[in-house]
Amino acid sequence: MEVTRQNFKDSLTTVYSAIEEADFLAIDGEFSGISDGPNVSALTNGLDTPEERYMKLKKHSMDFLLFQFGLCTFTYDEAASEYVIKTFNFYIFPKPFNRTSPDIKFICQSSSIDFLASQGFDFNKVFRHGIPYLNQEEEVQLREQYEERRNQSNGSGTTSYISPNANKGLGGVPEEHRDYIKRVMFPKGLHVETLETDKKERYIQISKVDDEERKRRERQKQEREQGKLVVGHNMLLDVMHTIHQFYCVLVCSILTDLLLCRLLDTKLMATTQPFKELINNTSLAELQKQLKESPFKPPKVVTAGGFPSYDTAQEQLHEAGYDAYITGLCFISMANYLGTFLTPPKGHIPARSKLIEPFFNKLFLMRIIDIPYLNISGPDLQPKRDHVLYVTFPKEWKTSDLYQLFSAFGNIQVSWIDDTSAFVCLSQTDQVQIAMNTSRYAESYRIQTYAEYLQGRRHVRENQAQGSQAWGEDGWVKPHYAPVPGTAAGDYRSSSGKRSISPIQEEQAQTTPTDGWSGNTHTHTHPDQGSKKIKTDGMHTLEDGMFEVLLVTV
Amino acid sequence: MEVTRQNFKDSLTTVYSAIEEADFLAIDGEFSGISDGPNVSALTNGLDTPEERYMKLKKHSMDFLLFQFGLCTFTYDEAASEYVIKTFNFYIFPKPFNRTSPDIKFICQSSSIDFLASQGFDFNKVFRHGIPYLNQEEEVQLREQYEERRNQSNGSGTTSYISPNANKGLGGVPEEHRDYIKRVMFPKGLHVETLETDKKERYIQISKVDDEERKRRERQKQEREQGKLVVGHNMLLDVMHTIHQFYCVLVCSILTDLLLCRLLDTKLMATTQPFKELINNTSLAELQKQLKESPFKPPKVVTAGGFPSYDTAQEQLHEAGYDAYITGLCFISMANYLGTFLTPPKGHIPARSKLIEPFFNKLFLMRIIDIPYLNISGPDLQPKRDHVLYVTFPKEWKTSDLYQLFSAFGNIQVSWIDDTSAFVCLSQTDQVQIAMNTSRYAESYRIQTYAEYLQGRRHVRENQAQGSQAWGEDGWVKPHYAPVPGTAAGDYRSSSGKRSISPIQEEQAQTTPTDGWSGNTHTHTHPDQGSKKIKTDGMHTLEDGMFEVLLVTV
Repeated sequence: MEVTRQNFKDSLTTVYSAIEEADFLAIDGEFSGISDGPNVSALTNGLDTPEERYMKLKKHSMDFLLFQFGLCTFTYDEAASEYVIKTFNFYIFPKPFNRTSPDIKFICQSSSIDFLASQGFDFNKVFRHGIPYLNQEEEVQLREQYEERRNQSNGSGTTSYISPNANKGLGGVPEEHRDYIKRVMFPKGLHVETLETDKKERYIQISKVDDEERKRRERQKQEREQGKLVVGHNMLLDVMHTIHQFYCVLVCSILTDLLLCRLLDTKLMATTQPFKELINNTSLAELQKQLKESPFKPPKVVTAGGFPSYDTAQEQLHEAGYDAYITGLCFISMANYLGTFLTPPKGHIPARSKLIEPFFNKLFLMRIIDIPYLNISGPDLQPKRDHVLYVTFPKEWKTSDLYQLFSAFGNIQVSWIDDTSAFVCLSQTDQVQIAMNTSRYAESYRIQTYAEYLQGRRHVRENQAQGSQAWGEDGWVKPHYAPVPGTAAGDYRSSSGKRSISPIQEEQAQTTPTDGWSGNTHTHTHPDQGSKKIKTDGMHTLEDGMFEVLLVTV
Repeated sequence: MEVTRQNFKDSLTTVYSAIEEADFLAIDGEFSGISDGPNVSALTNGLDTPEERYMKLKKHSMDFLLFQFGLCTFTYDEAASEYVIKTFNFYIFPKPFNRTSPDIKFICQSSSIDFLASQGFDFNKVFRHGIPYLNQEEEVQLREQYEERRNQSNGSGTTSYISPNANKGLGGVPEEHRDYIKRVMFPKGLHVETLETDKKERYIQISKVDDEERKRRERQKQEREQGKLVVGHNMLLDVMHTIHQFYCVLVCSILTDLLLCRLLDTKLMATTQPFKELINNTSLAELQKQLKESPFKPPKVVTAGGFPSYDTAQEQLHEAGYDAYITGLCFISMANYLGTFLTPPKGHIPARSKLIEPFFNKLFLMRIIDIPYLNISGPDLQPKRDHVLYVTFPKEWKTSDLYQLFSAFGNIQVSWIDDTSAFVCLSQTDQVQIAMNTSRYAESYRIQTYAEYLQGRRHVRENQAQGSQAWGEDGWVKPHYAPVPGTAAGDYRSSSGKRSISPIQEEQAQTTPTDGWSGNTHTHTHPDQGSKKIKTDGMHTLEDGMFEVLLVTV
């Protein structure tokens, strides 16, 4: 079902009840671009921490427009043993409400636009009929402005000259009450509503909602929603855009507080055991194809009456609603596959099964060598990076210069940070001290251990925190975890394996990006000199509620 | 005629010959937005200098995309006494050539997109079939990259690791010759071409074109073009975008050097005598309507065979080709009207007539109180602004605070610069000294004369020029004129009239923006306390080649 400016109001009930009845939801977004940074490698360094990656995306991806939002609701029909789906395609465009409301500027990236155009994406529908939106704060501002103007046109105010700063909130409030209002006002804690008496006299009701009350209401709502499961494929950007565009400005470790649902990323699922070994291409289209074949089973799905149905044989990839639909199918196939490990095996694994809980709130991270996901509801993985060096050098240096510098150490891997710095991964940790020693008297370049590098960053961060303006800008305000002083991180990473990931392998990491990382349980480490993948011996039994995610290094 | 990626090559001959044969060309562009600044008032201060305005547009408008370029060629048929027109609508989109070619990011402004959408603009045609483009520099880079890759795939180079800096130019040139090439290379002075011998052996011809030779060739080309007249309506942004997008990065006083044609702005023409008094709305649509009526005459125009014809009764405004066509019609009507002042009167005034020369290369400036145009081929007007004060104050101040501060001085006009500064125009120059004296001991605010303000800016500029990085960024490199030290400007402005332009009048200035400015010849000044326009008594006779532009202050 297409939802545009024209049928938005009429569709809302349908949308609400579809969500209400659903067992889980699948979402997907189409954006006007991905990165306004100089290039993708600047955005995705293979040794980013989850926090760094998140901050980069926040900085370089949020000025694009999420202009198509796909929602597919899946409701399980026990009697028929099949899912009933309802698909919605929301076209989104920030049409200005009037001359004084926000005139949003958004960036378009030619390659993204060109790609969507080649897929037949209908830009005219977006720009002509897209649903306008405001985030919470803009909505409050607009309501206040509107009130102010109504008051003025009713003769209750005659402010003739308005400075650029005038529209800051308390416009409609009489002068003598403003101080009081300012004192009781909280950011987002003030609820303003215009009501009418029976005699049609208008009045403004301002209710102060304190922090406790607000949290209580949010908890209530959260419980009411029972953390409905929302499934996406490679969904970090989708989630960030959705919050940023429709809810509020992204802050640092935002996600935990804001989410009223549980997220599941099918790309993360497909790159984790037991799926990792069975699936060799986790792009959405390929994943869906593979999940139709043995040992997986295509799920039984019917389209709800009155909704247009998709034919998966006739692909409509990169229409957000279709992609959401396919994502949901992938989730069902993988969830049901987990059921085959139970004794006795189960054919249908519901969205609330504990079997899939290990995948909750872990969002896939592209192209990070040793950290597969950003953990929304817990501390992030902190792989040991004591074989990693941070090297700074003149901007004339090329990768070959680094290879030459470290030629004594066998295979190395270089991850460029910028023109004058890079991470260099040595194949063995005990080489680190030798490299540090030989570099002591070097003048043209400088080597730090990864731990020293982290400490340097932390120092910069703390200085920024003490300063005032720099704080909010690049945002290291609330790290997910408190790093242990003097050490790089915890001890999640087994360092017994030789590491040798060539640049080519790093490219491959685009499709199989979790090669080379290790988790915190049952870690099997395989020495590997080449760039080919090595099969793991991970045989394991799963029981409902006792599922263990096996994280295997190649 | 629509020109897209699909028929671009096939259309080129038609386009070239249409331009070649034409008496004049009319152009118009449609953009994805106007200003990425916080608001229009920040972009268009009523007391900007032409240079300041140009720099603001360069900074805040060039990241939008010119995505439809309209060209209408007008060729006069002496025998039939009518113009023959050919109209082209070029759809433009920077489709990336390949994965390593520039991936352009451009900004969209919701209000502009929404406006075009409401006019039925076809965004799908732009994004699906738009003609890709490169500016000169990008073209050179792409050619070099292409050569480099061809050489590598032929085995002549085996650079395995390429740093982010590697693609800087001399990739395909053998190591032993690079130094030599570097020595003889000029920016834009090196012409690289791949040629083949009769025996199909490929070779690169690198020709060094020195500065003299390059200038000679450009002069030749310029003479060949004989400065073809290019007409636009409110065309400053069109010209800037065209140069920026298809030719080269805009520098400071770019225009004079680059232009191979002569420009005429119909909005400037319509707001100048003798048209100013006859035309009360100079928006393109209104102008065109008024120029059909007496004392003007609609021009006789026919569409060339094979070209789709426009029906002016059925408006297609804001399609670039149609707007270019209408602009051409307006120009003809106004040019022919000038012919009625000749003895004997002439019904047809050709594009090369000296009668219209006073309008050449003067581009209309929106919303500047006392300077109507940016002069491309001569010094800009420098109105006397000795009744203007530059005031800085706490950011809590509103316009009413300024009115209160200057309440002793009668009518004032406030032009906000930013949150903490504004220009205040007093109604009489002799009040300036009084205001300065009374402010001497003020602590919360500070007053400077306009001359002092200019000197301060100049100081900042010179400091920037001595620094290195700041130079190119905000660009005050080559001012159009050398300001006389210690004085605000020349003596172009009569200051005998009382000035009182209310904020409302400033708003009106959007459509009749030259109210309140004065020129350098035959200045008639009228005292005016209100905001209504006052008729001038400017009667005058014109002779071919002796035309004088009468610049009249209301």
